[in-house]
Amino acid sequence: MKDLRQITVIGLGLLGGSISSAALLRLRSVKVIGYAHRPSTRRRAKQLGIASEIASDLRKSVSQADLVILATPICAFEEIFREIADVLPGGSIVTDVGSTKVLPHHWAERWLPKTVYYVGSHPIAGSEQRGIKYARDNLLQQSICILTTTAKTNLQAIQKLRRFWSTLGCTVRVMRPAEHDKIFSNISHTPHVVVAALINANSEEDLKYAGKGFIDTTRLASGSPNIWADVLLTNTNNTTKGIDKIIAELEKMKKAIKNQDKKQVENLLEAARRKRHILINYKIKKKELIS
Amino acid sequence: MKDLRQITVIGLGLLGGSISSAALLRLRSVKVIGYAHRPSTRRRAKQLGIASEIASDLRKSVSQADLVILATPICAFEEIFREIADVLPGGSIVTDVGSTKVLPHHWAERWLPKTVYYVGSHPIAGSEQRGIKYARDNLLQQSICILTTTAKTNLQAIQKLRRFWSTLGCTVRVMRPAEHDKIFSNISHTPHVVVAALINANSEEDLKYAGKGFIDTTRLASGSPNIWADVLLTNTNNTTKGIDKIIAELEKMKKAIKNQDKKQVENLLEAARRKRHILINYKIKKKELIS
Repeated sequence: MKDLRQITVIGLGLLGGSISSAALLRLRSVKVIGYAHRPSTRRRAKQLGIASEIASDLRKSVSQADLVILATPICAFEEIFREIADVLPGGSIVTDVGSTKVLPHHWAERWLPKTVYYVGSHPIAGSEQRGIKYARDNLLQQSICILTTTAKTNLQAIQKLRRFWSTLGCTVRVMRPAEHDKIFSNISHTPHVVVAALINANSEEDLKYAGKGFIDTTRLASGSPNIWADVLLTNTNNTTKGIDKIIAELEKMKKAIKNQDKKQVENLLEAARRKRHILINYKIKKKELIS
Repeated sequence: MKDLRQITVIGLGLLGGSISSAALLRLRSVKVIGYAHRPSTRRRAKQLGIASEIASDLRKSVSQADLVILATPICAFEEIFREIADVLPGGSIVTDVGSTKVLPHHWAERWLPKTVYYVGSHPIAGSEQRGIKYARDNLLQQSICILTTTAKTNLQAIQKLRRFWSTLGCTVRVMRPAEHDKIFSNISHTPHVVVAALINANSEEDLKYAGKGFIDTTRLASGSPNIWADVLLTNTNNTTKGIDKIIAELEKMKKAIKNQDKKQVENLLEAARRKRHILINYKIKKKELIS
């Protein structure tokens, strides 16, 4: 396996741009190449100085890389794997930062040569803001990064990638892609669906009376529709099950309200309040949240 | 109708305490009496100096009032109206700050004497924080306050109350109680149900992986279960309809995901994104939100 001397980040949006500039800052001896499809993004990336070099040729950008990080919308991954497969240096590591992991593993298995090492990554960082202009080198600090591996994944590659994300400020956890997609459907993908439903169920006229609570609740809905459509559509089974679970909870509450069952309404609200309280204390303890 | 020389705030939680201290600050010539049921709340209220006088006798506390503001959980209103009805001075105004308005109007009509003027109030302020210790005199600033009135409501009482809330920093709007309860079910009460469902559908184990997005999305779930149970149970019809609308939206998205209909998934996400964008710009323009 090769030493880390060159990293190529493919896709320079909020996350790709932030990873690129964080790597530049924290790994002084490493050359960081940023590839972007759009000329306007490349111009902006140059202005911002977020990489050692900005590339316009995808295949060339990875031909000397020791680590390649895909940071485009998920549905572009398969095509990119196909396009770079035969120019990837033997012994290099390929990863991606997509929010679903089962399909990227499939695509990597299918298209990447046996001489390169694929590991999935999912840094739990970002915001509803989009694009390179919001990129910042501390975006990943105090965030979790999940690595996804299978029985076949090379151990040295896992260790190297673990060290890479740690250097960028992440706490790294490792799990199987299927486990990842189930958990993150519950706590990230399905919530995006729920928040969109909450807004779409309301008229623009009624929304004018919304308070700060509603605005905070629906922040996720300002995320990029094309990025999130890709996430939902590459995690179909878990997300539709997740939606069913939410509907079941809503029906439970509806029944309690209809029956004027105050005890049960309070119990459901209290269960949620308590769980959120435990969650926040856990996050503060783990230093993943400022108290 | 009487001039405003004495105000009594019944219930000194986050909202009652904040109203009391804001009135004390902004209406220097007015005596503000705060009533709280619990000795510990009264002690704290005295320490914090949030009223001219802290009262422990409910009937006495209103017997000289020109304006009485109920700031307890909604389900206590009817009992309080009954208890104070015969000691309220003729010509005084009675209001409440409950998040539903149809039932408070019914209870006022039923129990208050014809010599006092009832108008409903709903200041859209507060947070998931509970209790007097979070009270602050600027909580109401830059918030909307809805007044609810019927064909019978006295015009002078509306004007007086409008002036009162304006003085505390609110933008006042007036509507019918039924209209109020429908709108706020959509943008406030039902969202509380949705957020509770979002948490309750998840295990504590999965929640440990939640990111900042999930934590922000579910902030409302940390609100007081007994206050919100009262809200939901005094707005049964609208809330159950609101839950049905959310379920219909969730089913729409589920269908699109199942069918791998990327266009439709993106359309639903984009509709939500756009509506939230319009909402935020509207709020910034109206100075109800800092940009």
